Amino acid sequence: MLRDYQFEQIEIAPDIEECLENAKLELSKKQMLLKEKKLPVVVLFEGWGASGIGTTLGKVIQNMDPRFYNVETMNKISEDEQRKPFLYRYFLRIPENGMATFYDHGWMNDVTREYMHKQISKKQYYQRIESIQKFERTLVDNGYIVIKFFFHISQLEQATRTHKLLKNKNTKWRVSDEDLWQNKHYDEYLSLYDEYMNVTNDTYAPWYIIDATNKKLAQLQVLETLMSCIQERLEHEKQDAPLIDNVFEMREKIHLEDYDLSVNISEETYRRELKKCRKKLMKLHNKLYRKKIPVIIAYEGWDAAGKGGNIKRVTSGLDPRGYTVYPIAAPDKSELNRHYLWRFYKRLPKDGHIAIFDRTWYGRVMVERLEGFCRENDWQRAYNEMNEFEKELYDWGAIVIKFWVQIDNQTQLERFTERQNTPEKQWKITEEDWRNREKWDLYENAIEEMLQKTNTVFAPWYVLESVDKKYARIKAMKIVIREIEKRLG
Amino acid sequence: MLRDYQFEQIEIAPDIEECLENAKLELSKKQMLLKEKKLPVVVLFEGWGASGIGTTLGKVIQNMDPRFYNVETMNKISEDEQRKPFLYRYFLRIPENGMATFYDHGWMNDVTREYMHKQISKKQYYQRIESIQKFERTLVDNGYIVIKFFFHISQLEQATRTHKLLKNKNTKWRVSDEDLWQNKHYDEYLSLYDEYMNVTNDTYAPWYIIDATNKKLAQLQVLETLMSCIQERLEHEKQDAPLIDNVFEMREKIHLEDYDLSVNISEETYRRELKKCRKKLMKLHNKLYRKKIPVIIAYEGWDAAGKGGNIKRVTSGLDPRGYTVYPIAAPDKSELNRHYLWRFYKRLPKDGHIAIFDRTWYGRVMVERLEGFCRENDWQRAYNEMNEFEKELYDWGAIVIKFWVQIDNQTQLERFTERQNTPEKQWKITEEDWRNREKWDLYENAIEEMLQKTNTVFAPWYVLESVDKKYARIKAMKIVIREIEKRLG
Repeated sequence: MLRDYQFEQIEIAPDIEECLENAKLELSKKQMLLKEKKLPVVVLFEGWGASGIGTTLGKVIQNMDPRFYNVETMNKISEDEQRKPFLYRYFLRIPENGMATFYDHGWMNDVTREYMHKQISKKQYYQRIESIQKFERTLVDNGYIVIKFFFHISQLEQATRTHKLLKNKNTKWRVSDEDLWQNKHYDEYLSLYDEYMNVTNDTYAPWYIIDATNKKLAQLQVLETLMSCIQERLEHEKQDAPLIDNVFEMREKIHLEDYDLSVNISEETYRRELKKCRKKLMKLHNKLYRKKIPVIIAYEGWDAAGKGGNIKRVTSGLDPRGYTVYPIAAPDKSELNRHYLWRFYKRLPKDGHIAIFDRTWYGRVMVERLEGFCRENDWQRAYNEMNEFEKELYDWGAIVIKFWVQIDNQTQLERFTERQNTPEKQWKITEEDWRNREKWDLYENAIEEMLQKTNTVFAPWYVLESVDKKYARIKAMKIVIREIEKRLG
Repeated sequence: MLRDYQFEQIEIAPDIEECLENAKLELSKKQMLLKEKKLPVVVLFEGWGASGIGTTLGKVIQNMDPRFYNVETMNKISEDEQRKPFLYRYFLRIPENGMATFYDHGWMNDVTREYMHKQISKKQYYQRIESIQKFERTLVDNGYIVIKFFFHISQLEQATRTHKLLKNKNTKWRVSDEDLWQNKHYDEYLSLYDEYMNVTNDTYAPWYIIDATNKKLAQLQVLETLMSCIQERLEHEKQDAPLIDNVFEMREKIHLEDYDLSVNISEETYRRELKKCRKKLMKLHNKLYRKKIPVIIAYEGWDAAGKGGNIKRVTSGLDPRGYTVYPIAAPDKSELNRHYLWRFYKRLPKDGHIAIFDRTWYGRVMVERLEGFCRENDWQRAYNEMNEFEKELYDWGAIVIKFWVQIDNQTQLERFTERQNTPEKQWKITEEDWRNREKWDLYENAIEEMLQKTNTVFAPWYVLESVDKKYARIKAMKIVIREIEKRLG
């Protein structure tokens, strides 16, 4: 699409200043409507070096209320960000409902530049484009308005601009080596951009090419596009997003009733195995750290199934400087007002580190589904979204292990009763636990569906039979050991 | 205190393993009491290189519930952290109520090492020690238990250990250049540590020297100290912290009734001045960025005083890539469960950037005071705590500007009524606004007290007469310009 783009000689209307002023005022009114309707907006500014993105952006937002937008300059990738999945730094900066984020260069710029300079392979490049498509789609499916601009100038125009900037002492620093390199390789970049934009020109997040030859016209184009995109969304209630068929390779089906919950081990075996597993884990953790492999362990299970104690035994074999345990309760306001995976994205470990989640993103298809905290379309879409999320983690290089900690209804009742009757355990049991217990059958159905739809080869579920907690703990540790050993080869 | 410490030959009891096991179990029970009573604990592990902090820490916490503590390894300062006040990275990691943070090396290590290697001057060094004392005190005053360990070994022991580690291929990487350097300069370090510890050995956060010659004994000492510190706190309700006399240089007293609210400017003057101020700000912003000077602008004022519009005019003269506006509403759960300044600390700008707060930490002595969201001792202490906080920012190099946006009671009523009657402005007005309005006199008293007690020379208040909003906007912009120009010299 970029390759075929024709720069046209456009007359600049004499009243352009007035048009711009009006458009800016109009936009600030639209912003208040976004605030009122709690709609979040993601605006991506991509384009050639020296195409004037920063200046234009500054002008466009001049009349907007600065409390309700953020401008994110993404040119430098921090050390910490380098140790996370490549979309992490963008996901982290998505706006809250009613707010807007303007990305001054975004994910397109990152991946095309890295590919051009051979910092990522062809395979990685195409994988990343796929990740980007999924990212943009899941944003839109979850209510975000995604608007993508490409600031286009010709090779000659770019050369002229950088030349002019370089001549002046005060503006010299604004020209980067990459800008100069890009100008020399304009044609190659044009091809790459063209292909990238063709592939990612999805109906839910189309591209808008801005002729940036004239700065005022560029401003006007951006303003008008922003307004029409927002207007369209304000006029139409969000439709249910289509459910996507599963495309991921699945492992064999899990049926909870197939698991024999009477399995157990003796105290003696437990002590011996615990010691052995700890030792092994200790060694493996060291290797993970040195090979910079991230590990994500997700715990789900019935209330009182023994998740806490299980996690404690796994971590007792780890170097405390290399892991974090995240207990996941109800989301904070700032979490509730963003894409539901945001609060997990922001808790991802650095490479070489381990993150253990005590309850996870699967809350979406259990408690949120059953308590009506999200719409039906939301939780139905979530199976695929979570598979995609875990695939991202896997592609990044992570080991993803998911545990379902299983007990039977009678065991839960006994443990609840014991907690209720033991003063120092009472904090562990709430009214809500008892209420959830009444919905056992509904939960059972939801859990079966979840286990079936998300048991992928790259992020498999393991059922831990936890009527005998000791058995479950040793089983968990052995699975963690096995999965790490498998990856280390 | 460290210099006089005598290493003693201690017999190791034959049942040490059992003692350790018991102590670890005991500690895990104490942890549950902390959780129940919502007490937050900060544990600092400082000490010589190769004194075995990591290993000991790993053992000590083995029986604790990993969902309720964090181990923070602080050896590397990230690029982002380098661009913040030096305590930022520690403040950011303080635990929530009921949780514990274990710092694997902390602020003592940072400042002593930097001073030893002449990365900071003598003056800076002593300034930082003062900051540290205030930091530890404000944590304790706000309910934190602060426990500080120093792992002590002799020069010979350190040399033996590093030598042994270096001989083995697999452990070689654990010895840093700094460890070797430290061993060569053991005596100098001893003097520095000794002095540092003497100065910071405050009753609210005393030092515990751990003889780390024998690893098991070190473990036991740590475990027993942790338990007795926690036990003591569990047995005694927290007392009101003493109020500290102001020691900061103050500017002349502000009396709100001295301000003539009828001041105003014409539309024409406004337009002209706005344009001029924008231009100046644009240039100054560039210089701030290049000189890496951070700016913090705090807005407080009556509801409907015109804070939002005022901020908008100031930012309209700034490069959007270099500032962020933070609207401050009621704190999130994770914020409410920490020191009340935490949510502002985490929003501090990088050096060279500007942070604008729409409502601020002063909520403590206004809404929190008047609505009883904190105890009397809390808000009374807060004046000094906020002066100290702003002094930290100033010492870091920040320009701190505080605006009080002033209107009279009648003007507020008119604006409220207009908002209520204008459909697109209704979102701006809530029941709460009307309720607060009834307490005008109480607020007025609280505001006067706040302006008097926090009008320091390093972070002064400026009153903006905002019955004519245009007047207030130009005044704010001119003050920002003047303060920046003053700093740039």
